[in-house]
Amino acid sequence: MSLTNASPADAAQAAKSASHVLATLSAAARNEALTAIHAALTAARDDILAANARDLELARQAAADGKLSQSLVARLDLGKPGKWDDMLKGILDVRDLDDPVGRVTLRTRLDNGLDLERVTCPIGVLLIIFEARPEVIANIAALAVKSGNAAILKGGKESTESFVAISSVISAALEKSQVPNGAIQLVTTRDVIPQLLALDAHIDLVIPRGSNELVRYIKNNTRIPVLGHADGLCAIYLEQSADPSMAADVILDSKTGYPAACNSLETLLVQDTALSTLLPTVAAALAAKGVELRCDAQSKAALAGVPNLALADATDADFATEFLSLTLAVKTVSSLPEAITHINTHGSHHTDCILTASPEQAEQFMAAVDSAGVYWNASTRLADGTRYGFGTEVGISTNKIHSRGPVGLEGLMIYKYKIRGQGQVAAAYGEGEGKKRFLHQRLPLE
Amino acid sequence: MSLTNASPADAAQAAKSASHVLATLSAAARNEALTAIHAALTAARDDILAANARDLELARQAAADGKLSQSLVARLDLGKPGKWDDMLKGILDVRDLDDPVGRVTLRTRLDNGLDLERVTCPIGVLLIIFEARPEVIANIAALAVKSGNAAILKGGKESTESFVAISSVISAALEKSQVPNGAIQLVTTRDVIPQLLALDAHIDLVIPRGSNELVRYIKNNTRIPVLGHADGLCAIYLEQSADPSMAADVILDSKTGYPAACNSLETLLVQDTALSTLLPTVAAALAAKGVELRCDAQSKAALAGVPNLALADATDADFATEFLSLTLAVKTVSSLPEAITHINTHGSHHTDCILTASPEQAEQFMAAVDSAGVYWNASTRLADGTRYGFGTEVGISTNKIHSRGPVGLEGLMIYKYKIRGQGQVAAAYGEGEGKKRFLHQRLPLE
Repeated sequence: MSLTNASPADAAQAAKSASHVLATLSAAARNEALTAIHAALTAARDDILAANARDLELARQAAADGKLSQSLVARLDLGKPGKWDDMLKGILDVRDLDDPVGRVTLRTRLDNGLDLERVTCPIGVLLIIFEARPEVIANIAALAVKSGNAAILKGGKESTESFVAISSVISAALEKSQVPNGAIQLVTTRDVIPQLLALDAHIDLVIPRGSNELVRYIKNNTRIPVLGHADGLCAIYLEQSADPSMAADVILDSKTGYPAACNSLETLLVQDTALSTLLPTVAAALAAKGVELRCDAQSKAALAGVPNLALADATDADFATEFLSLTLAVKTVSSLPEAITHINTHGSHHTDCILTASPEQAEQFMAAVDSAGVYWNASTRLADGTRYGFGTEVGISTNKIHSRGPVGLEGLMIYKYKIRGQGQVAAAYGEGEGKKRFLHQRLPLE
Repeated sequence: MSLTNASPADAAQAAKSASHVLATLSAAARNEALTAIHAALTAARDDILAANARDLELARQAAADGKLSQSLVARLDLGKPGKWDDMLKGILDVRDLDDPVGRVTLRTRLDNGLDLERVTCPIGVLLIIFEARPEVIANIAALAVKSGNAAILKGGKESTESFVAISSVISAALEKSQVPNGAIQLVTTRDVIPQLLALDAHIDLVIPRGSNELVRYIKNNTRIPVLGHADGLCAIYLEQSADPSMAADVILDSKTGYPAACNSLETLLVQDTALSTLLPTVAAALAAKGVELRCDAQSKAALAGVPNLALADATDADFATEFLSLTLAVKTVSSLPEAITHINTHGSHHTDCILTASPEQAEQFMAAVDSAGVYWNASTRLADGTRYGFGTEVGISTNKIHSRGPVGLEGLMIYKYKIRGQGQVAAAYGEGEGKKRFLHQRLPLE
C-alpha cells in the first residue's frame, strides 16, 4: 500500500496494472497476503495505537471547540475494548471465506470441441471513499485482496494518522507477498477526488460510504459506475392483523436501535383499521424511548387519548425525509396497494417491511415493493452484510444493477466468457444448406 | 405500446408505474402477452410491410442522393426473404425461454423462523436506443415483456414508419393482456433523448446500440447506468505453435465475416518467432479477401517476399483504431506477457483470442486478458448472444459491472432480498451475554 505522492492519474494507472496481476493470483497467494497483513498489524499494534491517539487528540480538541460531534470522536478510538481485536479477526474472517474468483457459473457445449464457460473474475480497480473509522481500512483492504481487486482508498480525514500508520504496515506486509504494491493505494487528501473521478479508463467502480451529499456529489461528477446508496428511507407497513407486541418490538428496534443508520425506520404506514387497535401500543413504546411522531391528521386523531406522546403534524416533506434521529413520520393508508405505492414512490428502495399475520398480504408486499430488502415481520435493521452471513460488506447498494442490498465479496465480482475451441469459425454455423447447427448443450458446473 | 405524445417525464413516470405492475405478473401472464403480440403481428403483416415500403422508398431516395449507405437501405427491408418470419419466430423463441423472474439464488437460515432469500426480479425501466432495423423493435419488446421490465424504445429514424406500425399493433395486442399499457413505449423523435437521460429517478438503465459517438454521447450525458460498448477493438495473438491452416481460418473469419461488426478482428499480434513460419500463410489468405495490412516494421519485413499483399506502415494510432472495414493492424510481440499487456492497454475489453497449440499459454492468456470474451482457437465472431445459446441479446457489454459480453434475459435482471420472520429484532443478536447468534445455515435452493 503506497502513500500516493504520485499524481492521481499515475496512481490509477499503477492500480490498473496491478489489478491485472492480482486477478491472476491463486487463492493461496491472496490468502497468504492476508495472513501476512494480519501478522504485521499484530506486531505493529503499539505504533498504530500511538498514531490513533494523535488522531483522537486532535478530534477531542475539535469536539471541545464544537467542530466535531462526540459520536465521531468515539468512532475514532481504536483503543476501545474489543475494537483492535475485532479488526484483526475481521482480516482472518475474510481470508477464510470461500474464494469468489474463478467460479464457473455457466458451461455450454456450443459444438463438439467448442465449449463456452462463464467464470467469475475481479472487477478491476475500485475507488472506495469511506468514513473516519480507522478499522475500516483494514477491512476494506482485506476485501479487495480477497476479491482480487485493486483498490484506491480515501478515508475520512479525522483518521488520517491512523490510516497512514495502518497502510504503511499493510504496504510492508504486501512487499513480501505476491500481491503487487500498486494494488492497494491510500490517498490522504480530498482534493485528488475530482481528478480520480475523471479517470474512467482506469477506475472501474466507485464505492462511496458516507453522507447523502458525498454520494450525490460523486454520482453527479463521474462517468464511472457508482455503487452505494444516497438515502436510506425505510418504511414499515403496519397491517391490521399484526400481533401488537411483535409490531411494537420490530418498530422499536427498527427506529431506535441506531437511528443514524441507513437501515433505520423513517416512515410508519398504518392501515386505517389498525389506528385504534395497534397504533396506540406502538406509539407508547416509541414515546418511552424518546421518539417524536410526526403524524397525519388521521393517525394524530387516533392517538389523542394516549398519554405522554410527543406528537407533531406531519408535512409532505416528512414522508420524503431521512431523519437519522428519533423522529418518525406516521401516515394512514387504507390498503396494501396504497402502502406499496407510497413506498415505491416516496422510499429510497433500501429496505421496507410489512407487519402482518397474513401470508398473502406479506407475499404480495414482498413481490411488489421495489427495494433491495423486503421483509415480513422482521426489523429493517437486519439489512447488513454481517447479519446476512456475507462475512462483511463494503456497503449497502440501492442500485438497480449489479449489486443490490449489502455488498460482500460476491458483489465485487464480474465474470468473463471463455471459449476453448479447435479453430471453429462463425461462418460455418447457420440455417442454410451445408451450415452446422450449434448444440447449445448445458454442461454440469462440476 | 403507446406513441408518446406525453412529455418525456410523464412517459418515464408512466413506464415506472407500469414496471411495478409488470414485475408482479406471473410467467403465464407475460407469456400470454407474447403470444398475443405474435398473433397480432401475423394478422397485420400487410399493413406493416406497406409502412416498411414507405421507409424503404424514402431511404432509396436518400441513398440515390448519396445521403444514406446502400447497406443501411438493405437492412431496412422487412420484405427480404425470411426476415419477417424470423422476426415472428424470435418472439416465440423468447417466450419459450426459461422464466428469468423469481429465481431463488440464495437461501440462508439466519435463525429459527428467520429466513433470508435472494430472488431475481426485473431491473425496472429500460431506455433502449437502437439502430434503424425494423425487426429489432419486436425482438426488444419481447425481451422486455419476458424479463418483466418496462421499456422506452427509440429506434433509428429511417425505420420510423415501420416502428410506428409495429408498435401500434403491439400496443393493441397488449391492451387485451395483463401487461399495462405504459410498459412499452415508443418515442420517435431524437430531441427527447436528452430529456429522458435526465430522468434517473424513473429510468434504471440505458442500453444504447449504435455508433461509438452515440454511446459516448450517452455516457457523457446521464447519471443513469449505461450498458453497452462504445468500441469493439478485438485482437488475436498468433503464437508460434498455432496450426497454420487453423490460424488462417480463424483470422479470416474474425476479420472478414462481417467487418463492420463489433466482434470483428482489428489487431493481429504475431509472436516474433512466428513471423516467417505462420504470418505469410495468414497474410496471403487475408489478401485474397481484399484485406489491407498495416504492419509494424518487423512484420512488414517478414512479408517482403509474399506476392500480392496490400501492405502499409502502421502508425501508433492504428493499434487503437476500430477500422470496421477490411483493414487490419499487425504488430510483432516477443512473448505472451507482451501480447497480454498490449491487449489490456490498447483493446476495448470486448473479445480477444489466442491461437496456440499450448494449453498453458492459452489458459494464461484467458486468465490475464481483461475482456468480456477470451478465446482459445476460435473466431472472435462467436461473441454473440444467439451463438452463446442465450436465445437473443439486447447487445454486447464491455462494462465491468452487472453484465459483460452478450446480454440476454439474465442480464436484464437484478435481485431483491426477502426476509420472512416472526418479529425478530436486530438488537437481540450479537457477541455479548444474553445475545443470540445468527445460524447462517445455507439452505437448498429447491
